[in-house]
Amino acid sequence: MLPMLEDLKQHVWQANLDLVAHGLVTLTWGNVSGLSDDGELFAIKPSGVAYDKLQPEHIVLVSVDTGEVVEGDLKPSSDTPTHRYLYQHFTGIGGVTHTHSTKATAWSQARRAIPCFGTTHADHFYGEVPVTRPLTQQEIDEAYELNTGVVIVETFADLDPIAVPGVLVASHAPFAWGPTAAKSVENAVALEAVAEMALGTLALQPAMPPVEQYLLDKHYFRKHGAGAYYGQK
Amino acid sequence: MLPMLEDLKQHVWQANLDLVAHGLVTLTWGNVSGLSDDGELFAIKPSGVAYDKLQPEHIVLVSVDTGEVVEGDLKPSSDTPTHRYLYQHFTGIGGVTHTHSTKATAWSQARRAIPCFGTTHADHFYGEVPVTRPLTQQEIDEAYELNTGVVIVETFADLDPIAVPGVLVASHAPFAWGPTAAKSVENAVALEAVAEMALGTLALQPAMPPVEQYLLDKHYFRKHGAGAYYGQK
Amino acid sequence: MLPMLEDLKQHVWQANLDLVAHGLVTLTWGNVSGLSDDGELFAIKPSGVAYDKLQPEHIVLVSVDTGEVVEGDLKPSSDTPTHRYLYQHFTGIGGVTHTHSTKATAWSQARRAIPCFGTTHADHFYGEVPVTRPLTQQEIDEAYELNTGVVIVETFADLDPIAVPGVLVASHAPFAWGPTAAKSVENAVALEAVAEMALGTLALQPAMPPVEQYLLDKHYFRKHGAGAYYGQK
Amino acid sequence: MLPMLEDLKQHVWQANLDLVAHGLVTLTWGNVSGLSDDGELFAIKPSGVAYDKLQPEHIVLVSVDTGEVVEGDLKPSSDTPTHRYLYQHFTGIGGVTHTHSTKATAWSQARRAIPCFGTTHADHFYGEVPVTRPLTQQEIDEAYELNTGVVIVETFADLDPIAVPGVLVASHAPFAWGPTAAKSVENAVALEAVAEMALGTLALQPAMPPVEQYLLDKHYFRKHGAGAYYGQK
Repeated sequence: MLPMLEDLKQHVWQANLDLVAHGLVTLTWGNVSGLSDDGELFAIKPSGVAYDKLQPEHIVLVSVDTGEVVEGDLKPSSDTPTHRYLYQHFTGIGGVTHTHSTKATAWSQARRAIPCFGTTHADHFYGEVPVTRPLTQQEIDEAYELNTGVVIVETFADLDPIAVPGVLVASHAPFAWGPTAAKSVENAVALEAVAEMALGTLALQPAMPPVEQYLLDKHYFRKHGAGAYYGQK
Repeated sequence: MLPMLEDLKQHVWQANLDLVAHGLVTLTWGNVSGLSDDGELFAIKPSGVAYDKLQPEHIVLVSVDTGEVVEGDLKPSSDTPTHRYLYQHFTGIGGVTHTHSTKATAWSQARRAIPCFGTTHADHFYGEVPVTRPLTQQEIDEAYELNTGVVIVETFADLDPIAVPGVLVASHAPFAWGPTAAKSVENAVALEAVAEMALGTLALQPAMPPVEQYLLDKHYFRKHGAGAYYGQK
Repeated sequence: MLPMLEDLKQHVWQANLDLVAHGLVTLTWGNVSGLSDDGELFAIKPSGVAYDKLQPEHIVLVSVDTGEVVEGDLKPSSDTPTHRYLYQHFTGIGGVTHTHSTKATAWSQARRAIPCFGTTHADHFYGEVPVTRPLTQQEIDEAYELNTGVVIVETFADLDPIAVPGVLVASHAPFAWGPTAAKSVENAVALEAVAEMALGTLALQPAMPPVEQYLLDKHYFRKHGAGAYYGQK
Repeated sequence: MLPMLEDLKQHVWQANLDLVAHGLVTLTWGNVSGLSDDGELFAIKPSGVAYDKLQPEHIVLVSVDTGEVVEGDLKPSSDTPTHRYLYQHFTGIGGVTHTHSTKATAWSQARRAIPCFGTTHADHFYGEVPVTRPLTQQEIDEAYELNTGVVIVETFADLDPIAVPGVLVASHAPFAWGPTAAKSVENAVALEAVAEMALGTLALQPAMPPVEQYLLDKHYFRKHGAGAYYGQK
């Protein structure tokens, strides 16, 4: 179960620092949030605060229902409406990570989905990591960050966000999620790694097809679901 | 407001160290300067001094008006005339950073402007990061570093250097600037990041067009100007 | 001679940490094992344990003959059947390293062998680093990790695994081995380095042929076999 | 002036560690040597010793004239005959660095010289960094490391090794040199940087020509020779 309030803030603070430790953050580009046990609040990094100054008490609590700040003296991340929309629509997720990590962002900017070229990918994403459609001018002008959430959710109309816990926002950058803030960071790390591997793969084999479905099934299900046998239980 | 003299030297010293911490410096290639509050002096790294030996008292004070050293026992950076020319012609800037960071230098050497392929770019540069024309032999022979400033300013004849706080000098390397020395370092970091992302983008999509104007507007103006809402106030 | 039991566990624990220190590990992707002196047991990393929590007492002892855990409270790496199969079929090896290192994985995913383009490669691998055939659906469904070992050994039907101590598993990632766990890590490091160098080589010269046989012979045999003269004896 | 004996060994030891600190060394691939003031001896890293174990007393003294070890309990680097040949034929050099740094090695393996694409290159190398011809089978079989020196010197038949302090050995890796061991390390660092920048430049502009001669002249001579004005004095 997820921790509540102080524990949640501590957990989200740590997850934000882990993101830095994994080398996925340049300047202040990136933020991690985590949902409370009851699903009513999420804790998120404040906007534009340097990571080396970030303390647990800086983490802001936001209402999933209203989007209002419930606790915290600082403004939450400008990407808060995107996080909130994901919590509202992706049942079962408990953490969201947004980065501008270099290789995944290159794919986002090229508006190409990352094909599943191997088991590193299949271990974390059950199929290609999709790319959203670009936002329209109206969507951008009216409610940019909220509509970023909208196009993400739209991209998953026929996809299970639990099985594919990440996306490339066109001309922007990746979002990843997971059952906890810490797990969403892990998926963001995996996404950057597969983005880099796939770039190398295409340099060597420009017409490389994705892996066979049965390899995808095997690797995904040895880590996920009732038949999983990777890790300590 | 910018600090004065001792504070300015301390600030510029720290900004030079930050440049190293961000991984943008190889050997002694790179220098940061900062302008005094009254705009009459700027503080700059001495020439060819190793960063791990650099102390605040090594920072040299130079007159914007005459280019003469006002305080300091060491020679200022050989790029001092370029910095000075930028302070003279780009109203409103308070810091300049020059690096030979790898990816931005690759673009400089290819004499290609970096198109705006995404929001990371749009957050910092309002449109492509331009490349200067090559200097002529006469310009190089007569006053190389000064004329490096001249071609940079010429490149911005129809561009606002506040909105596009960086440039690629053809066959040379990037310069970035900002309201303070520290902010010019941030822009140099952003420039290197977008240079790397854009290389990856073109590898995946060689004919990729730049982002739509409305996305550029949105991202730039959510961080800059009267309507900005990114960060803490 | 290899250490026994506690010493072996200590040695394998250290080799796993060395793998991290060499930058070849993302998250928990990677594992190193080492064989006991009598060849009856091997020590291997537990499955899915974070490297910064890993202690020597976590290392699991597994029987080469039966594949059963002989000592240890944790489950061994999910790749244990692959390690075991290699120990059973590659006479003379005493350590195995598996990673998802980025560049070698890119080659694995492109299903291309790495040609020997230079002496860095020739110093460690006597000829190209081969790529396995893809596993069939039946092989994956019936005994995935064991059959990963089977296709590796099949790939070496006409190759000496002592002379070429590494392989790329198609659509998966590299395995490397050596006389000890520590040496298998060194070969994994070398494999990642030559994978990166070869990517650069092909970017510069897409039709580059491999090196002449006599250069390959020279470099390999100055480090290996009776005529070796590299290192301290 | 160069230090003698103990000071020389200390200096060469430090230069070897600096090579590691600059990220140019994988495993034990790389070595630095330095010449004594009288030009009769050079100090060099022992063969295959791990850098984190390397102590000043491990550094081996070798006679330039005879190639024999004059002082030291360990075998000198297997590349010692190459270093010695360079000291014998390149008048004025006082230090030699050999690495297998990734990008420069990619160029070596592609057997392409690195064109001068910009000022980073021109600051250190007066013109392209050349690539040697491949060694013949006879040269390799008879005296491999010595003949590596021979082909390097042959490559400089019409080039000044002081003005171009580095080379790519075909299918092998770079060598760099300078007035001291420390300066040879700096040139090896610069060589790796320009190798990486040039790879990026060609990715963006495959037919990019080298810089104009007058830019090359300007940058080289502002750092070298009687008219130099970079650095402190």
